[in-house]
Amino acid sequence: MSGNTFGTLFAVTNFGESHGPAIGCVIDGCPPGLALSAADIQPDLDRRRPGTSRHVTQRQEEDRVEILSGVHEGQTTGTPICLLIRNTDQRSKDYGDIAQAFRPGHADYTYLQKYGVRDPRGGGRSSARLTAPMVAAGAVAKKWLAHKHGMLFRGCMQQLGDIVIGFESWDHVSANPFFAPVADVSRLEAYMDTLRKAGDSCGARIRVTATNVPPGLGEPLFDKLDADIAWAMMGINAVKGVEIGAGFASVTQRGTTHGDALTPQGFRSNNAGGVLGGISTGQDLDVSIAIKPTSSIVSPRESITVQGEPTQVVTKGRHDPCVGIRATPIAEAMLALVVMDHVLRHRAQNADVQPPLPAIAASFL
Amino acid sequence: MSGNTFGTLFAVTNFGESHGPAIGCVIDGCPPGLALSAADIQPDLDRRRPGTSRHVTQRQEEDRVEILSGVHEGQTTGTPICLLIRNTDQRSKDYGDIAQAFRPGHADYTYLQKYGVRDPRGGGRSSARLTAPMVAAGAVAKKWLAHKHGMLFRGCMQQLGDIVIGFESWDHVSANPFFAPVADVSRLEAYMDTLRKAGDSCGARIRVTATNVPPGLGEPLFDKLDADIAWAMMGINAVKGVEIGAGFASVTQRGTTHGDALTPQGFRSNNAGGVLGGISTGQDLDVSIAIKPTSSIVSPRESITVQGEPTQVVTKGRHDPCVGIRATPIAEAMLALVVMDHVLRHRAQNADVQPPLPAIAASFL
Amino acid sequence: MSGNTFGTLFAVTNFGESHGPAIGCVIDGCPPGLALSAADIQPDLDRRRPGTSRHVTQRQEEDRVEILSGVHEGQTTGTPICLLIRNTDQRSKDYGDIAQAFRPGHADYTYLQKYGVRDPRGGGRSSARLTAPMVAAGAVAKKWLAHKHGMLFRGCMQQLGDIVIGFESWDHVSANPFFAPVADVSRLEAYMDTLRKAGDSCGARIRVTATNVPPGLGEPLFDKLDADIAWAMMGINAVKGVEIGAGFASVTQRGTTHGDALTPQGFRSNNAGGVLGGISTGQDLDVSIAIKPTSSIVSPRESITVQGEPTQVVTKGRHDPCVGIRATPIAEAMLALVVMDHVLRHRAQNADVQPPLPAIAASFL
Amino acid sequence: MSGNTFGTLFAVTNFGESHGPAIGCVIDGCPPGLALSAADIQPDLDRRRPGTSRHVTQRQEEDRVEILSGVHEGQTTGTPICLLIRNTDQRSKDYGDIAQAFRPGHADYTYLQKYGVRDPRGGGRSSARLTAPMVAAGAVAKKWLAHKHGMLFRGCMQQLGDIVIGFESWDHVSANPFFAPVADVSRLEAYMDTLRKAGDSCGARIRVTATNVPPGLGEPLFDKLDADIAWAMMGINAVKGVEIGAGFASVTQRGTTHGDALTPQGFRSNNAGGVLGGISTGQDLDVSIAIKPTSSIVSPRESITVQGEPTQVVTKGRHDPCVGIRATPIAEAMLALVVMDHVLRHRAQNADVQPPLPAIAASFL
Repeated sequence: MSGNTFGTLFAVTNFGESHGPAIGCVIDGCPPGLALSAADIQPDLDRRRPGTSRHVTQRQEEDRVEILSGVHEGQTTGTPICLLIRNTDQRSKDYGDIAQAFRPGHADYTYLQKYGVRDPRGGGRSSARLTAPMVAAGAVAKKWLAHKHGMLFRGCMQQLGDIVIGFESWDHVSANPFFAPVADVSRLEAYMDTLRKAGDSCGARIRVTATNVPPGLGEPLFDKLDADIAWAMMGINAVKGVEIGAGFASVTQRGTTHGDALTPQGFRSNNAGGVLGGISTGQDLDVSIAIKPTSSIVSPRESITVQGEPTQVVTKGRHDPCVGIRATPIAEAMLALVVMDHVLRHRAQNADVQPPLPAIAASFL
Repeated sequence: MSGNTFGTLFAVTNFGESHGPAIGCVIDGCPPGLALSAADIQPDLDRRRPGTSRHVTQRQEEDRVEILSGVHEGQTTGTPICLLIRNTDQRSKDYGDIAQAFRPGHADYTYLQKYGVRDPRGGGRSSARLTAPMVAAGAVAKKWLAHKHGMLFRGCMQQLGDIVIGFESWDHVSANPFFAPVADVSRLEAYMDTLRKAGDSCGARIRVTATNVPPGLGEPLFDKLDADIAWAMMGINAVKGVEIGAGFASVTQRGTTHGDALTPQGFRSNNAGGVLGGISTGQDLDVSIAIKPTSSIVSPRESITVQGEPTQVVTKGRHDPCVGIRATPIAEAMLALVVMDHVLRHRAQNADVQPPLPAIAASFL
Repeated sequence: MSGNTFGTLFAVTNFGESHGPAIGCVIDGCPPGLALSAADIQPDLDRRRPGTSRHVTQRQEEDRVEILSGVHEGQTTGTPICLLIRNTDQRSKDYGDIAQAFRPGHADYTYLQKYGVRDPRGGGRSSARLTAPMVAAGAVAKKWLAHKHGMLFRGCMQQLGDIVIGFESWDHVSANPFFAPVADVSRLEAYMDTLRKAGDSCGARIRVTATNVPPGLGEPLFDKLDADIAWAMMGINAVKGVEIGAGFASVTQRGTTHGDALTPQGFRSNNAGGVLGGISTGQDLDVSIAIKPTSSIVSPRESITVQGEPTQVVTKGRHDPCVGIRATPIAEAMLALVVMDHVLRHRAQNADVQPPLPAIAASFL
Repeated sequence: MSGNTFGTLFAVTNFGESHGPAIGCVIDGCPPGLALSAADIQPDLDRRRPGTSRHVTQRQEEDRVEILSGVHEGQTTGTPICLLIRNTDQRSKDYGDIAQAFRPGHADYTYLQKYGVRDPRGGGRSSARLTAPMVAAGAVAKKWLAHKHGMLFRGCMQQLGDIVIGFESWDHVSANPFFAPVADVSRLEAYMDTLRKAGDSCGARIRVTATNVPPGLGEPLFDKLDADIAWAMMGINAVKGVEIGAGFASVTQRGTTHGDALTPQGFRSNNAGGVLGGISTGQDLDVSIAIKPTSSIVSPRESITVQGEPTQVVTKGRHDPCVGIRATPIAEAMLALVVMDHVLRHRAQNADVQPPLPAIAASFL
C-alpha cells in the first residue's frame, strides 16, 4: 500500500488536499447492519472544525459530510462507505509566497524532494485539514464500538506550552475551546493571547483514553495494539512523541512498582496503559502524545527558496498558533480506528476462543 | 496480515518460541545481487546475545544463524531468505510455576485471554528472544543500505533507571556491556549490582540514529517514516514510549526555536529528528525509546492463578534485570528495517523524480 | 484489506452502488509528474458507457469523471487521485420486484447471505456499473505505461454466444459496437436481435493483450503476473474462465510444441502468452476470458423469495443481453492496472539489476 | 508484499529452493486450539511426493515435515507455525548444462531477466518442488475446515494429454497414480509410457472441489472468492487456464439455462461452480485447471545460451513427463488455503450477521 490507507480490516483510504475541490475517505470493511447517517458523524467533525474560537485558525469551513455509498435505508451494507467533504473557504492567494520558499519545520521541503512537484496551497496534502476525514471515519468506528462493546473514547489536553494542566473531570472538556479537563481555563486563554501577539506558536501534550476495551486485542509480534496506536498517533500532523501508560516515566520505575498487580477484583494500577505484550488487558487504554509548535508563523525565519537561495520566510494566512488545541478529537478518532481494526482482526482468528478464566475487572479502585 | 510480518516490500516474517525447537524469520523482497553469508549477520546477533556479562540473563545461547534459502553462490537471488536459529539452552523446568500464575506486567495474562492457550516456557512467543531474528534481518538491511547509500545505524543507552548517561563518543559504545557512549561505566555497574541483589529490575532510555539517510523516504498520510518508526519501536518488547527528534521536549518549545532553519549549507539544527511531514529530510534520524523494568523478577508480587485465585508470584529462572541493556542492537535493527522498506517503497513510486533542487546537507555544524 | 482495493503499490479503492449518489475510486501510489486531466480518462469511459447501441442496456449515463484530488496544475502530485462519477439515470422503481426475490445466476442471494442486508437497486454493489471506476483508473495506468514504456493495451471480442469471430485487424475494433476485430458484424447484429426478442441472453469470449511489456514483471511464488491477471479478470462481473496464452489448449499440446523457442532474433511463438514462471518474457501478454450470459433477463425463471417461498422471477428494467459486449474496455483496464502495479513492484526490488544479456525481441515473425 | 506470502489472515509465507538446504513455510494466523502434529500433514505430502510411480520424476525425497513453532502440547497456540522440509536428494550436477542455456517454456530466462542472478539447480525457486510447503499448509487448513465446518476437498484428473477421463467415483482417485476417478487406468499408463519413450511431455486437466462450503465467503469487489481461487490456481506451476463452474462452456450457454434455479429444497444445478457475485452460494466449489506440458524434456529444442548465442537444449535429470499427474493434491491444498482465508475474513466483518433466510441446500439432486 502507498501510505494513504489506515487499517487492515477496517481500512480507511484518505484523499484530498487542503485547497483542492474536496477531501474525504473510503471506509472498507465496516460491518453491515449499523444504523448510520451524516448526523452520527457531524458532531465529531464540528468538534475539530476550524474557526470556532479566537485561539484557532479563522478559516471558515463547514466541514459538511456527505455519505456517497455503503449505506442503504439508513443501514451500513458492508460495502465501502465513501465520505465526502467539499472544501469551501480556499483563499489560495494567501499561499503565493509559500510556493517560493520552504517553511522551517514544515513538510514543504520534503514533499518537493520526494515527489518533485507539490501542491503548495494550504500545505496541500500535508495540511492538518486531512485529519477531518479520519475524524469522520473515527465517528463510524466509535458508534460501532459503543454499540457492540460499550466502548467510550475520551481525550483532553494535559499541557499547553509551558502550562501543565491538571485533571479535574472529563465533564469540563467540552466546555472550553482547549479540551482541557479543568473548570478554569483563563490561564490558557491568556497564554494563547500573548503567544498570538508575539507571532509565535507552541506545543501541547494530549491524552486520549478508551474505556471498556475487551481483553485480547492486538496482534503480536508486530501489529501489537500499542505499536499500532503509536503508528496512528505519530501519523497525526505535528506529533513528535507517543507514550502508553507510564511511558517515559517507566524508565525510572522499578519492576516491583511498575508491574500492575492482578487481584480477583481487578488490576491495582494501570502503568501498562491497558496493554501487555501488545495485547489489551481490559484496562483503559491510556495514551499521551507530544505535539510540536506550528511551523506556519508570522515571525520571520531563516530558510531557502526553491532555487536553493537563502531567504527569510514569513507565513501569512490563517493558521493555528497551537495545532494541539484541535488535536483531541483527532487523537480520539485515531485511537478508535486502531481499536476497531483490532476487534475485527481478533475475532477473525479467535472467534472460537473460550479463555479458561473470565476477564478480570479493569480496576477496582 | 496476522501480526508476525514486518514491512511491506522488505517483509520479515518472524516465527518461533523461546523454548521451542527454533526461532527464525523469512525475509521476502531483498534485492538480488547482495553478497551475503552468515558472517554478515552473526556479529549483530553476538551483540544482542545473552550471557555475555553479569548484568544480563545467564542463559547460554550461541544464536548461530543458518541461511536456508535465498542465497546462491554467496549472493542474494531476490527470493525469500530464511534465517534459522536453533534454541539450545532451554531449561523449561524453570517455568513450571509460571504456567500456573500470571506475572504482573507480563504478557502471561493477555496471551491466555486472547488465545485460550499459551506456551509458558520462557514466555513462549512473548519472549524478547524473538528479537533475535529481527536483529539478523536488520543486519541484512544494514548491509544493503550501507552498500547502496552509505547509511550507518548507531544506538546507545542514554539512561539506566535513575542514572542519566551523557554522550561522549560513539567509540565507547562497543567497549562496555551497556552500550553506553561514555568511557567510565562504573556507576552503571554498581547500580546494576545493587539492583540485582535487591531482586528488582529497572527501565532504560535508548537512543538510536541513522546517518546518510536520503531525503524523500516515508509515505504520507499514514505510513509516514516517523509513524512506521514509532510502530517498529513500540513493537519491541517492554517499550512504553517513543520520541522522534525533540520528542516531548517540543511541547514547551516555541515555533521560532523548534523549526530547523534551512540554509544553502545545510540545516542549522535537528529538532525534527530527520523527518518533516512524515518524509525524511536528509538529516540524521534521531529516535529515543523508553523501556520499562523487566516483569520477571524474584521479588514476590501480588497476582492471581490461572484459576483466578489470589497468589504471590516469584519468578525464578534466568532473566535480564534490565532488558534495556541488550536493547540497543535491537532498536538499531528495527530502525534499519523500517528504512530499508521505505527505500524500496520510495523508489517504486518515485524512481523517475528529479527534484528541482539538490538535497541540502544534513547539517553544517 | 476488505476486498475493494485493487493492487499493492498502484492501489485502486473502489466505492459506490449502481443507484446510489455516486461511484468512483481512489488511486493511491500513482507516480508524480504525469500530465493528467479528465480528458485523458473520458474516452475509455465513453467506450464502456451504456446506451450507445441497441445491443446494450438503454440506461443513459454520461459517466462524467471529476478529479477531486492528486492533480495540481495538470500534473499528478504523487498523492491519492480521487475520481468521482455521479449517477444520474437511476430508475429505482424498476427494481421493486427484484428486492423480493433472487434472480438465478445473480448475486442477489449471496449478498443477502453474507451481509444480511443489501441494496437491491440495480444490483447495488454487485452491478457491473462498478467497473466504470476501474476503466477510469485503468486509463491513468495506460497513460503512464504508454509514456514510460510505450505499452499498448488492446482487446476484442472473439466469440459471441455460438458465433466464433475471426481476427482480421485491430483497426476494426472501434468501428462496431461489439469490439469485434472484423469488418462485417452483420451476423453479430442479427444474432443479438434474435436473442433480445427471445428475452434471453448469451455469453462471450474476450481477448485482451498488452504490447511492449518489459521482461521481468511478476512476483513469484504467488503474485505471479499471470496469477494476478487471472485474479483481475475473474474479478470482472460474469467472468467464469481465464486463459493465458495457449490456455486450455495446452492440455493437448506436447512439450516439444508448447515451449516457445528462443532465438537471438526473438521468440518463435507465444504459447506462453507472455509469461513464464510468473514473470513476463517481453512478449505480448495474451489473455482470454469467458463471460457468462446475463442473469437479468425477461424470461421467467424458477426461484425463491426472500422469505424462502417458491416463485417465478422476471427481470424488467434495462439490462445488457450480453455483458460481454461492453467487457472489452473493462478487461483492457484491468490488465493495465495489473501491469502498472507490477512495474512499480518490480523496480522497488530490482531497480539496480542489470541482466547479463539484453532482452530478446518479442517475436521476429 | 513481495510475492511469497499467500493469503491475508491465514497467511502462508513460502521459502526455499529445489536444491537448497531446505524448503518450508510459515503459517501466520492459524486459529488457536487446533490439535496438530506432523502426522496430520504427512499424508498429503506423501500424496504429492515424487518417486512413487514410474510416471513421475524418480527423484527420491522423503518430504518429512518438522513443526518448528506455533504448536504447544499438541495444540496450535495462534502464533506462527513454521513447517520445515529438508531437501535430501539433490543431484545438482544434473543441472550443469541448464545453467548455460534457457529451456524453452521454462522460467530460466525470465528469472535471469528479472533478478540478474538465478539458482539454476533444479529450477531453483521456480521448481514445482515449492508446492510441497503449500500442500503442508493446506493440510492444516483442511483439518481446521473439516473440524469447524465439515468441509471436504477433493480433486481428480479429468484429462491427460489427448485422453479425456470420465468420472466414475471419487473412490478410485486414491487407487491409481494419476488421481483419476476411474477404475481402469491402463490407457493412461500406456499413454505415459509412449510419451516417456518419445522423450516428450504432455498437459493435463485437473478438477478440484470443495463440499460443505458455507454461503457468504468472498470479498467483492476484488477479492472475490472465485478471483482468489483463480489467483491461487494460476499461481501453481504450469497452469495456463482456470475455470469456475461452467467456465468457458458458459460462452455458448443462454441465460435461461446457465442461471441455476433456486428452490426451497436447494439449487437445481451448479453452473455457477458455487460462486455468485464473488460470494459462495453454499454449493460445491467446482474448479478446473489446465496444466501445460513440462518444459524439461530430453528432446532437443532450439534456444539460446546465457550469452545470447543460438544453441540446442536437452534437459537431462529427473523430471515429470506430465506435472499434472502430481497436481491434484496441490490444487486441493490451494483451494483449501483460499477458503480458509475467506472463512476468517468473512467472520471478521460479518460475525454478527443473521441472514433473513436460512441457507438453502447445496443441491437436492
